[in-house]
Amino acid sequence: MTTPTVQYEPGCVRLLDQTRLPAVEEILDCHSIDALVDAIRRLVVRGAPAIGVAAAWGVVLSAHLNRDGDFFAAVQKDIATLRAARPTAVNLGWALDRLGVELDAIKQQGVDPERALVYLTEAAEKIHQEDIELCERMGRYGAELLPDEATIITHCNTGALATAGIGTALGVVFAAVEAGKRVKVFADETRPLLQGARLTAWELQRAGIEVEVICDGAAGWTLHTQHIDAVFVGSDRIAANGDVANKIGTYPLAVLARRHGVPFYVVAPYSTLDLSLASGAEIPIELRDPAEVTRFGDLATAPEGVGAFNPAFDVTPAELVTGIVTEKGVFRAPFEEGLRGGYAAAD
Amino acid sequence: MTTPTVQYEPGCVRLLDQTRLPAVEEILDCHSIDALVDAIRRLVVRGAPAIGVAAAWGVVLSAHLNRDGDFFAAVQKDIATLRAARPTAVNLGWALDRLGVELDAIKQQGVDPERALVYLTEAAEKIHQEDIELCERMGRYGAELLPDEATIITHCNTGALATAGIGTALGVVFAAVEAGKRVKVFADETRPLLQGARLTAWELQRAGIEVEVICDGAAGWTLHTQHIDAVFVGSDRIAANGDVANKIGTYPLAVLARRHGVPFYVVAPYSTLDLSLASGAEIPIELRDPAEVTRFGDLATAPEGVGAFNPAFDVTPAELVTGIVTEKGVFRAPFEEGLRGGYAAAD
Repeated sequence: MTTPTVQYEPGCVRLLDQTRLPAVEEILDCHSIDALVDAIRRLVVRGAPAIGVAAAWGVVLSAHLNRDGDFFAAVQKDIATLRAARPTAVNLGWALDRLGVELDAIKQQGVDPERALVYLTEAAEKIHQEDIELCERMGRYGAELLPDEATIITHCNTGALATAGIGTALGVVFAAVEAGKRVKVFADETRPLLQGARLTAWELQRAGIEVEVICDGAAGWTLHTQHIDAVFVGSDRIAANGDVANKIGTYPLAVLARRHGVPFYVVAPYSTLDLSLASGAEIPIELRDPAEVTRFGDLATAPEGVGAFNPAFDVTPAELVTGIVTEKGVFRAPFEEGLRGGYAAAD
Repeated sequence: MTTPTVQYEPGCVRLLDQTRLPAVEEILDCHSIDALVDAIRRLVVRGAPAIGVAAAWGVVLSAHLNRDGDFFAAVQKDIATLRAARPTAVNLGWALDRLGVELDAIKQQGVDPERALVYLTEAAEKIHQEDIELCERMGRYGAELLPDEATIITHCNTGALATAGIGTALGVVFAAVEAGKRVKVFADETRPLLQGARLTAWELQRAGIEVEVICDGAAGWTLHTQHIDAVFVGSDRIAANGDVANKIGTYPLAVLARRHGVPFYVVAPYSTLDLSLASGAEIPIELRDPAEVTRFGDLATAPEGVGAFNPAFDVTPAELVTGIVTEKGVFRAPFEEGLRGGYAAAD
């Protein structure tokens, strides 16, 4: 990856525009909170960890823009605006919570906006750097789960584009290859927005890793006809019992993996856990514009006037999850106690 | 349906070009066997029964074109050419077998090509008319399986466009609505060629039946969150044990339906049975051009040079099939004896 997913320079959150990949590699500069929220909604930046990092920098942008105004009130308002950008990914709220706590502390200390900006920048930089390091650690834990010659199926994009680092599920692939293993990836194309075909294939091709795209509906036949060692996916939110929200199409993949006796691993930073939710039933699922399904660019894929049911995510029950790979190690069923305690089973 | 899927007039097989729907409603005229084979390969006409009817008319076209040549040899050669057009759909071979038997009988009788043409036309017309009647009968049997207010999921297109009549799985919906039932359909969009979004939605919208398109990967979450009464799909070939080949993505849908306790019905004329095959493992599965997955019209959906594994069909094991609806009634597990004997369980 030569082009970072998220960058910040004073007054500007810079995002690699993932809606235009792989055809066009372009940076979108967000000079306002509205522009950043719009970019998050349009999936210019996507992937739970990357959204969290972008939101953290959004708070810094807000602080930069409001230096001369009603500083604390304005930044707090922008935090609330950023929080509402997408409902499912927990990392968004988690990153904003961290910056919000920082902001409160700064307010208590009575420091001026210029100094506050420095502190908030340090806090965002810390989240950004942490994400890079978490990816490395998840990658190492995950790579140990793969044989020396492995073929996996993955869904959506969970690579460098989805994080500030090497990625979550795809980070495992990069780490495994780095460790000398040979990995082939079948990438679910991931309708409706084709993050697998567009982004995962792009990242793997650049890294010289063997990849074949499959339609989401072909994963079942791929499991039946090819030797698949494991399924690796990311997550946008994990409930305390181990239920996992991830890109729509993940749940069917987990059901099929179970049927074929193939281990199903979720790779996500520990911050993806939402311990306030007892189960996946409480995870809010974003419903997106039907036009994402019924149009493709300028082309209609369905007749004018026909609607679509377009949930952006689904929830995979913990019983179908073989392991949850975090920077703390690999959590295994029963998940509840380990996840709440923050300790992974020895692996 | 005002535009028939397949028509014949002397020297021309006329096909409604399904690759251009729903945007453009256009008839493609095939004046040669090569043109017809190309049309079948490109899915201008698709759906196992419709392919069978088109192939039957192809034999008539061949007889028409070869009236003044080496008639029997030429027509036999064209039958072989048509047979190779697509490997999975059994109806193609079945229709050609029937015309081939007719051709042999005609040859035995020593009739001249002009008279032979009349006989072959009558045989093709019979297959065409039979398909219309089979659809009506399958529709009536299938409609009895639905409650008065039903919500179903379907995959690919199995309506009037897939047959010469009202369709197979979608014919059931039309028959149920005709019988006064209220039906809502969630139509899997059916990647890579979107027959569900383009064709099923088009047919249902025209018929005033409620339809929402879903991505194939959303069927699992739809089964989890909506009240679904049944899944109805068509088939391209059914083995003697009840294993069902159908459009890629059908097998995952069957696995999910079983998980959610939703009945999974296959609707296909009895001619879809291939009793020469003991199980689905023997069904040839067509692998199609990766570009169907990696390109969408003129747009690249994956980076240049990235390949795709693109099986056109998958096989659903009989154990996941609740019933096979044919013109003879509803076959139920254990399938083998009933299917071989040609008698459906009382329903």
